[in-house]
Amino acid sequence: MMIVMKAGATEDQIQSVIDRIETVGARAHPSRGEEVTVIGAIGDREHVQRLGLEGYPGVEQVVPILKPYKLASAQIRPTPSVVEIEGRRIGGEHFSMIAGPCTVETRDQTIGTAHVVKAAGGSLFRGGAYKPRTSPYAFQGLGQEGLRLLAEAKAETGLPIVTECMDARDLEQVLEVADVIQIGARNMQNYPLLAEIGRSGRPALLKRGASATLEELLMAAEYILKEGNPNVLLCERGIRTFETAYRYTLDLTAVPVLKELTHLPVIVDPSHAAGRRSLVTPLSLAAAAAGADGIIVEVHPQPEEAICDGPQALVSDGFADYVEQVERAAAVAGKVLSSVRA
Amino acid sequence: MMIVMKAGATEDQIQSVIDRIETVGARAHPSRGEEVTVIGAIGDREHVQRLGLEGYPGVEQVVPILKPYKLASAQIRPTPSVVEIEGRRIGGEHFSMIAGPCTVETRDQTIGTAHVVKAAGGSLFRGGAYKPRTSPYAFQGLGQEGLRLLAEAKAETGLPIVTECMDARDLEQVLEVADVIQIGARNMQNYPLLAEIGRSGRPALLKRGASATLEELLMAAEYILKEGNPNVLLCERGIRTFETAYRYTLDLTAVPVLKELTHLPVIVDPSHAAGRRSLVTPLSLAAAAAGADGIIVEVHPQPEEAICDGPQALVSDGFADYVEQVERAAAVAGKVLSSVRA
Amino acid sequence: MMIVMKAGATEDQIQSVIDRIETVGARAHPSRGEEVTVIGAIGDREHVQRLGLEGYPGVEQVVPILKPYKLASAQIRPTPSVVEIEGRRIGGEHFSMIAGPCTVETRDQTIGTAHVVKAAGGSLFRGGAYKPRTSPYAFQGLGQEGLRLLAEAKAETGLPIVTECMDARDLEQVLEVADVIQIGARNMQNYPLLAEIGRSGRPALLKRGASATLEELLMAAEYILKEGNPNVLLCERGIRTFETAYRYTLDLTAVPVLKELTHLPVIVDPSHAAGRRSLVTPLSLAAAAAGADGIIVEVHPQPEEAICDGPQALVSDGFADYVEQVERAAAVAGKVLSSVRA
Amino acid sequence: MMIVMKAGATEDQIQSVIDRIETVGARAHPSRGEEVTVIGAIGDREHVQRLGLEGYPGVEQVVPILKPYKLASAQIRPTPSVVEIEGRRIGGEHFSMIAGPCTVETRDQTIGTAHVVKAAGGSLFRGGAYKPRTSPYAFQGLGQEGLRLLAEAKAETGLPIVTECMDARDLEQVLEVADVIQIGARNMQNYPLLAEIGRSGRPALLKRGASATLEELLMAAEYILKEGNPNVLLCERGIRTFETAYRYTLDLTAVPVLKELTHLPVIVDPSHAAGRRSLVTPLSLAAAAAGADGIIVEVHPQPEEAICDGPQALVSDGFADYVEQVERAAAVAGKVLSSVRA
Repeated sequence: MMIVMKAGATEDQIQSVIDRIETVGARAHPSRGEEVTVIGAIGDREHVQRLGLEGYPGVEQVVPILKPYKLASAQIRPTPSVVEIEGRRIGGEHFSMIAGPCTVETRDQTIGTAHVVKAAGGSLFRGGAYKPRTSPYAFQGLGQEGLRLLAEAKAETGLPIVTECMDARDLEQVLEVADVIQIGARNMQNYPLLAEIGRSGRPALLKRGASATLEELLMAAEYILKEGNPNVLLCERGIRTFETAYRYTLDLTAVPVLKELTHLPVIVDPSHAAGRRSLVTPLSLAAAAAGADGIIVEVHPQPEEAICDGPQALVSDGFADYVEQVERAAAVAGKVLSSVRA
Repeated sequence: MMIVMKAGATEDQIQSVIDRIETVGARAHPSRGEEVTVIGAIGDREHVQRLGLEGYPGVEQVVPILKPYKLASAQIRPTPSVVEIEGRRIGGEHFSMIAGPCTVETRDQTIGTAHVVKAAGGSLFRGGAYKPRTSPYAFQGLGQEGLRLLAEAKAETGLPIVTECMDARDLEQVLEVADVIQIGARNMQNYPLLAEIGRSGRPALLKRGASATLEELLMAAEYILKEGNPNVLLCERGIRTFETAYRYTLDLTAVPVLKELTHLPVIVDPSHAAGRRSLVTPLSLAAAAAGADGIIVEVHPQPEEAICDGPQALVSDGFADYVEQVERAAAVAGKVLSSVRA
Repeated sequence: MMIVMKAGATEDQIQSVIDRIETVGARAHPSRGEEVTVIGAIGDREHVQRLGLEGYPGVEQVVPILKPYKLASAQIRPTPSVVEIEGRRIGGEHFSMIAGPCTVETRDQTIGTAHVVKAAGGSLFRGGAYKPRTSPYAFQGLGQEGLRLLAEAKAETGLPIVTECMDARDLEQVLEVADVIQIGARNMQNYPLLAEIGRSGRPALLKRGASATLEELLMAAEYILKEGNPNVLLCERGIRTFETAYRYTLDLTAVPVLKELTHLPVIVDPSHAAGRRSLVTPLSLAAAAAGADGIIVEVHPQPEEAICDGPQALVSDGFADYVEQVERAAAVAGKVLSSVRA
Repeated sequence: MMIVMKAGATEDQIQSVIDRIETVGARAHPSRGEEVTVIGAIGDREHVQRLGLEGYPGVEQVVPILKPYKLASAQIRPTPSVVEIEGRRIGGEHFSMIAGPCTVETRDQTIGTAHVVKAAGGSLFRGGAYKPRTSPYAFQGLGQEGLRLLAEAKAETGLPIVTECMDARDLEQVLEVADVIQIGARNMQNYPLLAEIGRSGRPALLKRGASATLEELLMAAEYILKEGNPNVLLCERGIRTFETAYRYTLDLTAVPVLKELTHLPVIVDPSHAAGRRSLVTPLSLAAAAAGADGIIVEVHPQPEEAICDGPQALVSDGFADYVEQVERAAAVAGKVLSSVRA
């Protein structure tokens, strides 16, 4: 941590900061410039942070130097992590296509879509049984019945299941079906939930909050990793900006930046960011070309009949062509689709 | 809901939208302009929304007309709600001063601060026992022991208690002590938690998420109200913007706008927005003058020794002067401090 | 335009809005719903807008229906515009590689880089003679001497020149050299400058302001088009968001959205958004795969010696490989590089 | 400037950064921590910045320590600047009420409003003759005729004039009438215009761009100050955020933060931020209570007839009451209205 003193800071104020740093066993390195003095504090980050030096007399600014995350950091593990889910690899040179309906609605819709995803070379099957909805009056998912249908879809197609858990009290049930537990953007900083999923050991797909910084995303991942669960997939799904011409701004710069900061795989969700079908293909190609480790996308046999988010779902009919085109974009970034084609 | 058709939409596409609207029992009112046709859909909002008309052929845009919240709406209740907490009134012409430490740390710090708050004319006492922290390595609060100290502070001073609950599984314990349950910004869209607090019937202080729109804040309040709990206090605590010269941008425009949209009281938290003490007084005065129904502010006997957020805490010593100045600003907006002065 | 009345609006208020709409010769179409009344105003947009109905008694909201831009609109011209610059085509199925140094510094650097760009298959050569700099103490460009060096680069390589004009009083000089006049992000709403460039008839590359909406970008283009200059290239170069892990958030969703809204070509500048070299290649691939009509990128023989923005410049040595990789990404989106290879 | 090296930076890389810093005559102070090395560079800021160390091998991050602005800085001048305009003082303990119509429309409207402003105790009169408009089809102001009407208003009431200049080529004319030249938000980074206004020596009211950081605002002020013109008034007028329930987010945190960073007076424009009349009074009170040095507000005899921005204009009739209420809020912050009451 670097403590930048104000231009007019007195020698006493400087000494007082140095003394305070040393109370927690850290070392202080002052650099006296012509205009300001900067004091480096070297020692345990948490201890130094607790000193609350931001408010101290004569202190202008406290600049953190070390990253606050550890287990998620590329420094600890310079090679990319590869998470394996029933034979499908996510990360490294592998590209994953995770697809399915936004919400599990009926047996036909679920099983039918799973077959489409399988046939097109999809890697995993996604579908929501518990749905976080902005309105308390909107459909909240089929719950347990939805989980049962997902289990059936897996039994029929062999595709591993990705589904969301939004309440720690439902986790046990979700664990019976989910190969990957999705943590929604609204729950990215639901720390008790993160810790429980960490303790479960089950692979987790952690969505970035709509206004979470990349550092906050990595800190949220750290909550899971800290419990001994190394299988975290990060997911960019669009951030909130001033633009109103579309729903969220898909942050594809996050892909190469996360690759520099962390060893964890990075998945992109173009469907929720876009909010409408016509944008999903160009954004998927862009994500794959940017070096993403996979895509999680919504597909539905009859989107106009979907209960939830129909306008953004791809249509089953063209799905195989879509997958092929995304494969070509991934190839430009040096990645190969991880699938067990039917 | 208004469905705006594309400039080149065909008569068939227009008719198809009209037919679809009528399938859910709603009425369709087309207005044919020189350039575009707009179709009004009149009927049950949820049914119409489920139609997913955004993706329909020929549709340019779907514009919602009615507000999606009902119980929170000023339309349903045009006069301001006043919430009463052990004789202190919040809302209407009453101004509340909610103050205390960020975190409950020790008995002395807690009881001592409560006496300072009481003496200065504070309305309620705040203090965190469960703390959501960005880092899993940071201090997470004293938990149950913290709740016990808060109970003691209430017993000594008579001040009602505001404290956060961040996990539905802790709610029962929190209910034993809290007169008002705080829902933190990170949990604003933790719907299972909102519903549980709704069912508890206890007054709730709902903080706006750092990038939640006012509509989303009101929808989150609706989750609580819908369970039959009318006692919701909304709290503006700063939104995330591009500016980096301070922590969050305190959105004081939200105060008069919420006054137009809802009957619920609006509290402002200047401490978390500012992140440093020197900004807290001007922002408090501004919030009071803008017409806020109260302020929730951090105060600490020795902020430089605080475990958490010390740099933003006011110092106990000057607290009475601060309250007096805020009272004068509230008076400009026509409000009177709601307190039982020692 | 749709005028949404408040829930409690009286019949008199509704009639008064209708009367007012008719004063400017427009027609009013009221739709009376169960909860609110919506009035469609059909007629000249500018006239109706001037009515200022937002403030009228009983009015809740005024919702514009028609796009405010005309000449830029895809409605007026449903097929993509192709701009031709000395044999290079921009737009449609053509992909342009516009490359060169941020700033013209010396004869060797300028001519040397131009040869590198030419050899790699670049379409146009970019270089700044007038530089808008946040600090008045920073290097502001070589000015006229810079223009002279650009002219020499063109004479040597045949590459058309893209260079910025930031003051209408310099336009005449810039026109002597520039095949395409760049309008920087800070000047996107410098209307007198836009109009002058419009009157000049010279092709313009209009950069999106760091917080301009796509509608504002198109309105700025409209200022140029309105003067009879149809040759406008739009340029996405990153928007300002809350994220601090990199410089600007490159908005690649803007690419397919602009393709729906306008016929004008869309260029992407990955260099300024990224701010550092390691992000430029993945972002370039993403932009090409998303369907951009070209890229404008910075390249320098020795970036570590560059006066300005060296950290984001690609190195000349690897530039040909870079172009080849971007070509492959553009091919996935169905586009072919427009170049006259050496 | 502090150069933070990567965790795995080699001794050679560290030495190479040190050598490079010394090439421009600056001194390098390395601090070797357990995890990373930080190198302080002490010397001329511009020289060090040009080194482009962000891209250097082994460099993680470059952290600027000194503020990039000088003349605007509170360090250079720790007491507030007071700008005097024909006997009205702006800054220090003085509070200014700058009011008038958005746009000069007619003789009656202009002179009439000026009398209202004068009678209510207004400090200066504002009115636009040249109007930057998002649409090229919107009314662009009366131009020279508008300036003439402003001159007449001043002759009649004695109120000094604030009016915008948006093109350096119009400056000479504007100088004939304007006591304070307004620089609009869209032109905050129009550097040639800033420099010309700087050279004119006339007091300038510089509006913050809708997405300009406070540092960028101060750098823009620096462009004016650098030309020898010390009379710069900063103006906060709302920033662009994700919120859509109102037009811009008025950033009142900027007021106390600017007070810490600079000696220049800070004015707040609540009208453009709010976009509608009902929000203008609460935001004005908030701005005054936050410690602003003045307010610039729109007032119109018949807002519903205004050509431009009518919905946000206060009505002449209630203007005197408004001024009185704002005066009371300013008093809470220790300021007194600077006016020559009729």
